[in-house]
Amino acid sequence: MQQWKTRDRKIILDESPWLKVERHVVELPSGQVIPNWQWVTTPDYVNVVTVTEDGAFICFRQVKYGVEGDTLAVIGGYLNDGEDPLEAAQRELREETGYESPDWQALGSYRVDPNRGIAMGHLFLARRARLVATPIIDDLEEQHLLLLSRAEIERALATGEFKVMAWTAAVVLALRYL
Amino acid sequence: MQQWKTRDRKIILDESPWLKVERHVVELPSGQVIPNWQWVTTPDYVNVVTVTEDGAFICFRQVKYGVEGDTLAVIGGYLNDGEDPLEAAQRELREETGYESPDWQALGSYRVDPNRGIAMGHLFLARRARLVATPIIDDLEEQHLLLLSRAEIERALATGEFKVMAWTAAVVLALRYL
Repeated sequence: MQQWKTRDRKIILDESPWLKVERHVVELPSGQVIPNWQWVTTPDYVNVVTVTEDGAFICFRQVKYGVEGDTLAVIGGYLNDGEDPLEAAQRELREETGYESPDWQALGSYRVDPNRGIAMGHLFLARRARLVATPIIDDLEEQHLLLLSRAEIERALATGEFKVMAWTAAVVLALRYL
Repeated sequence: MQQWKTRDRKIILDESPWLKVERHVVELPSGQVIPNWQWVTTPDYVNVVTVTEDGAFICFRQVKYGVEGDTLAVIGGYLNDGEDPLEAAQRELREETGYESPDWQALGSYRVDPNRGIAMGHLFLARRARLVATPIIDDLEEQHLLLLSRAEIERALATGEFKVMAWTAAVVLALRYL
């Protein structure tokens, strides 16, 4: 199967580092040319489902500008420039919770939007996590750290309390390893 | 927990119907004002994990501009204006495959990006699907319909063959009901 080819690209909106939009000229395998394909870039990110030595899931209840009402969340954040996804995941876990884990499982790296691109989301499971430091709270959002049981996680999934696609994907993928 | 408030909004890029970018002035519960919050809108979409009467999973192998190499995909597409997500899911299943299902399970509706918005993705499981019509292929991408066993789906998940976040989320959520 043949990929589409990018024949030209031009930045049409630059709100770096948060958002960039390009206009691509795209050529299909048939020879057909699409002169105006929108390509969107936001920072790549990690999400980490974290389970403590005692078997508790570390979550946040938080508000996010893009989400109605409050939501359950997993650990996560944007990759720094040139940062390896696993390193970013380990950094975010330490910063957001003060926990560290000796046992990391990659849950896959996924394209956010098959047409416009948007970002890559890298998902991880961290097991046997231990509290080793004080968290650094630098997010703008109000958030409360929660330790949930597996039964509570299952209920939260069933009622859609993880309101963001990547967070639900991470939690459901993680459960397959636990 | 208090939501952030939108104090003002202005369109800074309009590539309707595919993409719109707004600049929001956002006020936090603390009173802090963020004068330049990017808000991105692409069409809301549905994805449908479909299982036939014989227990086969209907998938596509396809190329997408935003995905490296080919990928396994589930049925899906954008909502029409004002269309109900379940109706869109039923329409996409019929159009893309020629199958219909009498047995629909909602798998949740999720925000694609907790900060910038992007879209809502509505996920469904359709069971006992039967071939009733000829599919309408109007997508630009090359795609091949496949009927996969549960074991093949499990292997595809383990090796990351569903390369898009929402498709993986839909498949893993669906397996919890099967």
